[in-house]
Amino acid sequence: MLIQLKKDISELQQNQILELMVNTYRLKPQCIDTPRAKYVVAPSGDKPLDIRVLGGLDGVKDIHRVSDAYKLVSSAWRIQPTSIDLGDEVRIEKGGLSIMAGPCSIESEEQIVETLDFLRAKGVQIMRGGVYKPRSSPYSFRGLGIEGLKLWYEHANQRGIKIITEIMSVDQMKEMMPYVDVFQVGTRNAQNFNLLDALGRQSKPVLIKRGMSATLDELLQAAEYVFSSGNEDIMLCERGIRTYEKSYRNCMDTNAISLLKEKTHLPVIADPSHGIGIRKYVPQVAYSAIMAGADGVLLEIHPRPDEAFSDAQQTLGFRTAERCFQGVRETFALRVKLES
Amino acid sequence: MLIQLKKDISELQQNQILELMVNTYRLKPQCIDTPRAKYVVAPSGDKPLDIRVLGGLDGVKDIHRVSDAYKLVSSAWRIQPTSIDLGDEVRIEKGGLSIMAGPCSIESEEQIVETLDFLRAKGVQIMRGGVYKPRSSPYSFRGLGIEGLKLWYEHANQRGIKIITEIMSVDQMKEMMPYVDVFQVGTRNAQNFNLLDALGRQSKPVLIKRGMSATLDELLQAAEYVFSSGNEDIMLCERGIRTYEKSYRNCMDTNAISLLKEKTHLPVIADPSHGIGIRKYVPQVAYSAIMAGADGVLLEIHPRPDEAFSDAQQTLGFRTAERCFQGVRETFALRVKLES
Amino acid sequence: MLIQLKKDISELQQNQILELMVNTYRLKPQCIDTPRAKYVVAPSGDKPLDIRVLGGLDGVKDIHRVSDAYKLVSSAWRIQPTSIDLGDEVRIEKGGLSIMAGPCSIESEEQIVETLDFLRAKGVQIMRGGVYKPRSSPYSFRGLGIEGLKLWYEHANQRGIKIITEIMSVDQMKEMMPYVDVFQVGTRNAQNFNLLDALGRQSKPVLIKRGMSATLDELLQAAEYVFSSGNEDIMLCERGIRTYEKSYRNCMDTNAISLLKEKTHLPVIADPSHGIGIRKYVPQVAYSAIMAGADGVLLEIHPRPDEAFSDAQQTLGFRTAERCFQGVRETFALRVKLES
Amino acid sequence: MLIQLKKDISELQQNQILELMVNTYRLKPQCIDTPRAKYVVAPSGDKPLDIRVLGGLDGVKDIHRVSDAYKLVSSAWRIQPTSIDLGDEVRIEKGGLSIMAGPCSIESEEQIVETLDFLRAKGVQIMRGGVYKPRSSPYSFRGLGIEGLKLWYEHANQRGIKIITEIMSVDQMKEMMPYVDVFQVGTRNAQNFNLLDALGRQSKPVLIKRGMSATLDELLQAAEYVFSSGNEDIMLCERGIRTYEKSYRNCMDTNAISLLKEKTHLPVIADPSHGIGIRKYVPQVAYSAIMAGADGVLLEIHPRPDEAFSDAQQTLGFRTAERCFQGVRETFALRVKLES
Repeated sequence: MLIQLKKDISELQQNQILELMVNTYRLKPQCIDTPRAKYVVAPSGDKPLDIRVLGGLDGVKDIHRVSDAYKLVSSAWRIQPTSIDLGDEVRIEKGGLSIMAGPCSIESEEQIVETLDFLRAKGVQIMRGGVYKPRSSPYSFRGLGIEGLKLWYEHANQRGIKIITEIMSVDQMKEMMPYVDVFQVGTRNAQNFNLLDALGRQSKPVLIKRGMSATLDELLQAAEYVFSSGNEDIMLCERGIRTYEKSYRNCMDTNAISLLKEKTHLPVIADPSHGIGIRKYVPQVAYSAIMAGADGVLLEIHPRPDEAFSDAQQTLGFRTAERCFQGVRETFALRVKLES
Repeated sequence: MLIQLKKDISELQQNQILELMVNTYRLKPQCIDTPRAKYVVAPSGDKPLDIRVLGGLDGVKDIHRVSDAYKLVSSAWRIQPTSIDLGDEVRIEKGGLSIMAGPCSIESEEQIVETLDFLRAKGVQIMRGGVYKPRSSPYSFRGLGIEGLKLWYEHANQRGIKIITEIMSVDQMKEMMPYVDVFQVGTRNAQNFNLLDALGRQSKPVLIKRGMSATLDELLQAAEYVFSSGNEDIMLCERGIRTYEKSYRNCMDTNAISLLKEKTHLPVIADPSHGIGIRKYVPQVAYSAIMAGADGVLLEIHPRPDEAFSDAQQTLGFRTAERCFQGVRETFALRVKLES
Repeated sequence: MLIQLKKDISELQQNQILELMVNTYRLKPQCIDTPRAKYVVAPSGDKPLDIRVLGGLDGVKDIHRVSDAYKLVSSAWRIQPTSIDLGDEVRIEKGGLSIMAGPCSIESEEQIVETLDFLRAKGVQIMRGGVYKPRSSPYSFRGLGIEGLKLWYEHANQRGIKIITEIMSVDQMKEMMPYVDVFQVGTRNAQNFNLLDALGRQSKPVLIKRGMSATLDELLQAAEYVFSSGNEDIMLCERGIRTYEKSYRNCMDTNAISLLKEKTHLPVIADPSHGIGIRKYVPQVAYSAIMAGADGVLLEIHPRPDEAFSDAQQTLGFRTAERCFQGVRETFALRVKLES
Repeated sequence: MLIQLKKDISELQQNQILELMVNTYRLKPQCIDTPRAKYVVAPSGDKPLDIRVLGGLDGVKDIHRVSDAYKLVSSAWRIQPTSIDLGDEVRIEKGGLSIMAGPCSIESEEQIVETLDFLRAKGVQIMRGGVYKPRSSPYSFRGLGIEGLKLWYEHANQRGIKIITEIMSVDQMKEMMPYVDVFQVGTRNAQNFNLLDALGRQSKPVLIKRGMSATLDELLQAAEYVFSSGNEDIMLCERGIRTYEKSYRNCMDTNAISLLKEKTHLPVIADPSHGIGIRKYVPQVAYSAIMAGADGVLLEIHPRPDEAFSDAQQTLGFRTAERCFQGVRETFALRVKLES
């Protein structure tokens, strides 16, 4: 049950709606207020709703039955694909193609500049990189932190390249905010609900990676946390799941991409680097993901991949990356043609 | 350790080689004799082999170190891709594109004829269909059996269409043989070693589906059973694995396709129908699989898919199938271009 | 829908029942005839059955609604636990405790005799061992075959010890029959339906191992194949499932034991050796399984475990085995006490 | 590589050790300082260490080679089992038996008091309960928060019962601290490294639940985060993993308990409630876990389980709970006997 409210609804009208839902239908409605719109969401109750009564109330724009566990991110009510504006005509949108590439870890000014210049030359507008690194072992390199981010931003900003980087905890948010274009939530934090809530209460777009063994419903509900806290600019990311097979790092779930494209109005990005974890297969995994419906790819690249501080074995050098960008674009063009 | 022997090697020479391996290197060699070639295979031993001694023996063509658990099917020694000739210029080969389509179950003469005519009109040369159906429940429809196969063969033969169908046990083989072009080993029999052995001792090509949760090594060793029993005409089939996710039937493992293409000289076929199990996503799963490297697809189609006796929910009707064939071909063309 | 028929029902009466089901209720009933009883089974249909009409027919003993995918093996209709008589007062029964132990592979007369003597001294009445070994690689030791079985039988019979051993294909059955007390179906053949069918048409008890990634429903339906083909003497075996975790061979699913005990009237045996695959943990896995409800254990033991031809790493020596038997018995005694 | 330092080591001596490791062996050593001891940890390097040189340095107490990915929590160097003192003679220790029970969510004063009184009467010294609840959906009940915790503490403190409750984010820590005896890290935060770090920098004991699909190595490295940040009072918790099987909520991994007991000196607790997720099987899952080696159980109980705000389906009522406590104690006694 999802009610779109008019943006100019009065508090009195809003309260009437809530009271009706509570008293007449014994529902527990929740008001959602985002910079773009207002909503009331309530899980379905026992008593069938009289949509004519609710729909006739002042301030109500539209009413939708949404039977999914998630509501606001469901394509059951919003058919229009979500388009996320990063400024300077950079957009990430359902149905489009976004390429984001960069190293696993931000390591040095030289690495930053080489990567930015390469991306700009190849028409890639978004650079990925980690400054706070979640590592299984406490003794591994954990990233350059905020100073690395500032340095990166300085150079990226000069070149008009946008920044996507992982945030690991709420207390990093304020400091990171000025230098980040998209906050990434990593696979290990995909159900860190306090972090998701906090990301919903700020205005930068958010990319949520699927948890290592998360169901699609769990991923969509993670997005629902962000949206219901006030931020509509969300994208999902399939990055491979954990299976019994040991000959690759993760199992790229291209099926998940196809289903997510149907279930939600949010863009779905593929991460082929983690999706297989072996450098030489990354391009074909990227093409596969695009054919399955991905709206973009997140690629690990590095000027000297074998020297990368982390994820070296799945990181592309620039020559392969360039071919991969081209292949991704041609594959996307074919998909658009076949869909039409 | 894999030794290629000359086809005209004398028994004496062959015995000398075996004795040397047993006595000097304490290996347990196994002789393999196929219609095309002769081999000696032995798992690696403790003592390093002197390849010059072995290579200098009469009757030895070449010697290869193969460290994989599988030997004869490994691309570590045979670089040339396997090409399987079904006659009438129908081939299934690594690096090529084979489309095989048809119903889950053979149900009636009408269904057979409609499907054959459709396939011929669309340039598809191989029809799939089940006459012996492995079903989880003993009370489900188990197929028309040998009579269904004979009827199917009669019409297929008239139209020059080849037949691929599942064999469930050794005692069905003799009766099925005259009517079958490719024997399929189903996912539930993927480690039925007696069946695999028996299929190695006959001459019809064999398609082996990956077990429901089989590792790639297990799949390749299943193929090794067939090859080492004497039959080199083998293809592998990725059909989705079992995971925790409930929103699709199986999880199409496109990574597996990419890795198998590297590990073996055998062709790798994708089964997108089982790979996702939901009709509307089958075409994009097929395209994904092709981009990952698949040498062909196995598709479930039916003149009236909603009336199919089995697997209706994942079976394409003819209109969608036609678009899917076309999409598969265009995707393959793009892959070939990107690989070059 | 499951109808128990009177053993002396006339063919006329039986046909009347079937016709009623087909014509009035549009069901597809199936007659099951075992040495002990007669049944009619039919999956539920659309039209509600009038149980008074059916129940009033001559020859009908009782009628049960069974909504499970499996019918005859369900505890939804048969409350009485299944008890399997191996002769000489050896029984395997739900609610009892059976210990079966022996080597992975039968290797030599010496090994047979030592093991039998040990088992007899320790009060264990059933010896396990493999003469036909399913091996992932075609180059591994595949067992001594029928000659090994005959030798084993000769010594076992003298000592009153029963034999459980794996059958891999239908064509081995006739030859093995005189020397076997329980046929084991291995994990790789757990959905080899032709083998299951054939085992249903003979009279020796059958132990079915759960497939490597089989659901409980699939395991129960495998048993349904055997029962519906005419053999009621079936036991199930949990032997660990395949997961992502690499620090043990399989993941012993003690939950499965608890649920199977509720779902079926058949005995449920645990295989702790495969369930964890590491020798030193086998006894505690056995005790765990007993507390979860297992009606017996299948243990790999060997006079010189480090020299075992196969599964050495999970095989117990006699000293540990003796302690393990004792522990299993004490654990079982505690479980019985706690259940009361 | 793990070096135990003397507690009274001088800064000069400490620096000498570090310099030696950096300069001579090119290691990246890390100093760990906990209220109990001082350590230097370094991942193994290429150059073999001369232990006599290092061991002869002033201030060095002992040197251990630890090849595991985790170091401080490994039983490779510390054989003595960890014992965690909660005060008032309540201890959680490896080799002992701790029962912790209580509702999934703290709901009301009445529920708190009833549960506390029941636990005290049955000799259970630790009560579990959630005041911050991680929920897949943002619209589910998220707990009473800090006010609920204060109320709970007031009553628990009067009765000498200790409190274990989940912390979801770093910013909750300070406020919760005075009212908590053990901080629980939930399965969804099992790789929330910022939270783990922060829990290492305070003094209350920490229970870490295994992530939903975490490997044992990942769980142990999560504990390594806490230990290496300064807190030695850690216990691990097996709570079932995610598999393909749908007939239970999670798959209790009793194997994991057995292996963890070997790999680490930390106590290992079992959570049978989440481990199967179905009320009627919880006691036998608890007994299984104890036989596998668990040092305690975490049980969901409620005065009126069917009315529980969350996890009702897996929550025991008091009568069953009482029997379960007794069964757990008897099972533990048997295990101790069998281990001796």
